[in-house]
Amino acid sequence: MIAIDSFKQSFTSLAAGEIVAQQFAQAGIASTAVAIADGGEGTIAAFLHNKPGGEKIVRPVHDPYGKLIQAEFGWYPAEKLAIIETAAASGIQFVQPAATYQLASSQGTGELLRAAIELGAQRVIVGLGGSGTVDAGVGLLAALGARFLDAAGQQIAQPLAHLAEIDAIDTGAVMTKGVTLLSASDVTSPLTGKNGAVRLFGPQKGLTGSAAVELEQQFTQLAQRLDPQQQGQVAGDGAAGGIGFALRLIGSQVHSGFDLIAQVCQFEQLVQAADVVITGEGQIDAQSLQGKVPVKIAQIAQRQHKPCLAFVGNQVGDLAAFQAHGLTSIFPIVDHVTTLQQALVDGKMNLARAAQRVAAVLTLV
Amino acid sequence: MIAIDSFKQSFTSLAAGEIVAQQFAQAGIASTAVAIADGGEGTIAAFLHNKPGGEKIVRPVHDPYGKLIQAEFGWYPAEKLAIIETAAASGIQFVQPAATYQLASSQGTGELLRAAIELGAQRVIVGLGGSGTVDAGVGLLAALGARFLDAAGQQIAQPLAHLAEIDAIDTGAVMTKGVTLLSASDVTSPLTGKNGAVRLFGPQKGLTGSAAVELEQQFTQLAQRLDPQQQGQVAGDGAAGGIGFALRLIGSQVHSGFDLIAQVCQFEQLVQAADVVITGEGQIDAQSLQGKVPVKIAQIAQRQHKPCLAFVGNQVGDLAAFQAHGLTSIFPIVDHVTTLQQALVDGKMNLARAAQRVAAVLTLV
Repeated sequence: MIAIDSFKQSFTSLAAGEIVAQQFAQAGIASTAVAIADGGEGTIAAFLHNKPGGEKIVRPVHDPYGKLIQAEFGWYPAEKLAIIETAAASGIQFVQPAATYQLASSQGTGELLRAAIELGAQRVIVGLGGSGTVDAGVGLLAALGARFLDAAGQQIAQPLAHLAEIDAIDTGAVMTKGVTLLSASDVTSPLTGKNGAVRLFGPQKGLTGSAAVELEQQFTQLAQRLDPQQQGQVAGDGAAGGIGFALRLIGSQVHSGFDLIAQVCQFEQLVQAADVVITGEGQIDAQSLQGKVPVKIAQIAQRQHKPCLAFVGNQVGDLAAFQAHGLTSIFPIVDHVTTLQQALVDGKMNLARAAQRVAAVLTLV
Repeated sequence: MIAIDSFKQSFTSLAAGEIVAQQFAQAGIASTAVAIADGGEGTIAAFLHNKPGGEKIVRPVHDPYGKLIQAEFGWYPAEKLAIIETAAASGIQFVQPAATYQLASSQGTGELLRAAIELGAQRVIVGLGGSGTVDAGVGLLAALGARFLDAAGQQIAQPLAHLAEIDAIDTGAVMTKGVTLLSASDVTSPLTGKNGAVRLFGPQKGLTGSAAVELEQQFTQLAQRLDPQQQGQVAGDGAAGGIGFALRLIGSQVHSGFDLIAQVCQFEQLVQAADVVITGEGQIDAQSLQGKVPVKIAQIAQRQHKPCLAFVGNQVGDLAAFQAHGLTSIFPIVDHVTTLQQALVDGKMNLARAAQRVAAVLTLV
C-alpha cells in the first residue's frame, strides 16, 4: 500500500504514488497507491482516485468578486456524499492584488454546498485549503440562506459590505439541516488574534495595513456577537479566511484532511491487506512527529503490525527517532551530489530511482 | 557477509566493512566483514584481517636508494604463506622527486621475498601496487641471487647502473626454486610500449623527458634479450615499474588482487554461509562491469543464489544493467543536497546512515 504526501515544489501525492507503483510493478510487486489530501487543491481528485463510485459535478457559481464561473465538486451518488474544495470557487487563483478584501466573498463555496445538497447530499466534506477570501464565511452563509440582522433586527441585504453592523444571525432557513458537514483542514488557527485568519493568513492573500486592522476589529466583534461562547477561538475557525468559523456555526465538525480521507477511503483496511506500507513527504523532521502524513500512516502500519518505509526529499534527524513512531526505514530520494534547485527539478526521476532500488530489496522480503 | 572496496579519497575497505557491520549489529543483524585488497598498500592488513593465524614480520631491508629501513610482511606459519607488498620497501613514499630513476631499485622487495623464504615460506603473494621504482625488477632479481651477464658472459656487478649492457640472466642461484610465487595486481600493462611501465606509470613517479625515452629503449632491449618469447608483453609485466615482468621470469603467476584474497580467504564459502552479501565502491559505472570488486562479489553471490546489495559513492547507469550481473540493488550513500567536496568529507557518516536504513529493511527479509 502506497500513501505518499505531496513533495511541495516537486510533485503531488497522486503523482508520487503513481511513480512508486510503476517502479514496484516493474520489480514484480503489486501495489495500491492512494492519494493524500489536506483539504486544499487536489482534495477532490484524491478522493475520486482513492474511492471508486465517484464523479465530478460542474455547477455555475460566483467567484470572490461575483463573476459567474464553472466550478466542480466530487459526488458519490450511492452514498450521497459530496466533496467540496474552497479552492474551486473561492480560491486564491481568483484574487486580484488590488481588490478590497472585504469584498472578496466565499459566496461561491456556499453555492457549491447548496448545489450538493440540492443533488441529495447527506454528507459533505468541505476542504478548507487554498482559499483566497478572508470574509469569516459570511458570503458562504448568506448563499446558504442565513439571514444577517442588524441591531434593530432588520436583515442586512449585503452583509459583507456591512460587517460592523451585523448583530445576529438567523440560521433557520439554512439548507444544511440534517446534512452532516465535515470541515477538512490541517490549519488550527482561531478566527482572530495573532494566529488568526487576518494576521496569519491575510498577508499571503494581499491583506495588510489599515484594511487588515479594521477587518480584525470587525471579525472580533462578529465573533463576540454570533459566537458568544467560543468567540471564534476554536481551532480551525481561522481556516480558509474564516470559512472554518462559519461552517462551525452551522454544525460542521473539523477534522484533518488526512483523517477524513483515511477514514472515508478506508486506509486502515488497505494497510491491513498490505505486506508493506510505503509513505513519504518532502521533508521529514521533528515536526513530522507532531502528526504529519508519514507519521500518521506509520502509526496505522504499527497498529496493523506492518513495516512502513518512507521516501523523503530530505531527512532531518536520526532514523531511530522515527523508528520509534512506526517508520521502519526512511529513504531520501537525493542519491548524488546536487544542488537544491536541481534536486527539485529532478524530483520525479530521483523518486523513481529510489523506488526502484528499494523495490529490489523488497522482493527479498 | 560484507565485502566493500575502498572509497577512494574517503575510506579504506577495512573501514567501510567496520562501519556497515556496526550499523547492522545495531539493527540485530550479525555479519562478517572482509577487507578487499588490490595488491597495493593495505594488502597485508586485509589478509591479516580476513584470515586468522597470521602475523606481521619486520625485517631490515633497503629502500629504493639503498638506505636501510624496517619493512614488514604478513606471515602464516602454519601454511608457510607470506604476503608481501612492493609498497613496503619500494613504495612511492620513498621516492625523491629529483632522483634519477634508473637508480631507484626494487632491491628491498627482493630482500623481503628472501626473508620470507628464509622463514620457510612455500607460497608467497607479492602485491604489486603503490611502488615507486621503475627498474623492471632488476634490483629485486639481483637481491634474490640472479646473476646478470654481459655479452662476454661476465657478471655485471651493478646491473641497474648498466641496464644497456645486460645480455643474459642466470637464475640458477635464485632462491625461489620450489616456492609458489603469486603476483597480485590489477594492472594489465605490458613492460614496454604506450601502456607500459615507463610511459603509462613513469610520469606519476616523476619519470619524464629524455630519461624516460632512454629507459624505454633499455627496457625494450632487456625484454628482447631476457624474454625472447614474450618480450615483456604479457599482461601485468608493467606492474610495479616492471616487477611484474621480473617475477614472471622466475615463475610467478599474475592474479588480480581480488581473486587472490577471495581465494586465500575463502570468500566463496563466506558467501555460501551468508543470507545477504553486501559490497560497494566509490563509483559504480560501466567500467565496474569489466571486473571491478562489487561485480566480482556479485558474481560469487549469484553463483551461490544470494542477494547482493552495493553501497556506492556514486552510481552511473541504470540499476537494471547492474542487476543483470548479480547486484540485487545499489544504494548511493549521498542522501541530501551537498557538494562533492563535502560528500567526500562526510563519506563515513553517509555510509553509516545508508547502512542503517538498509539494515532496517533487511531485518524484514
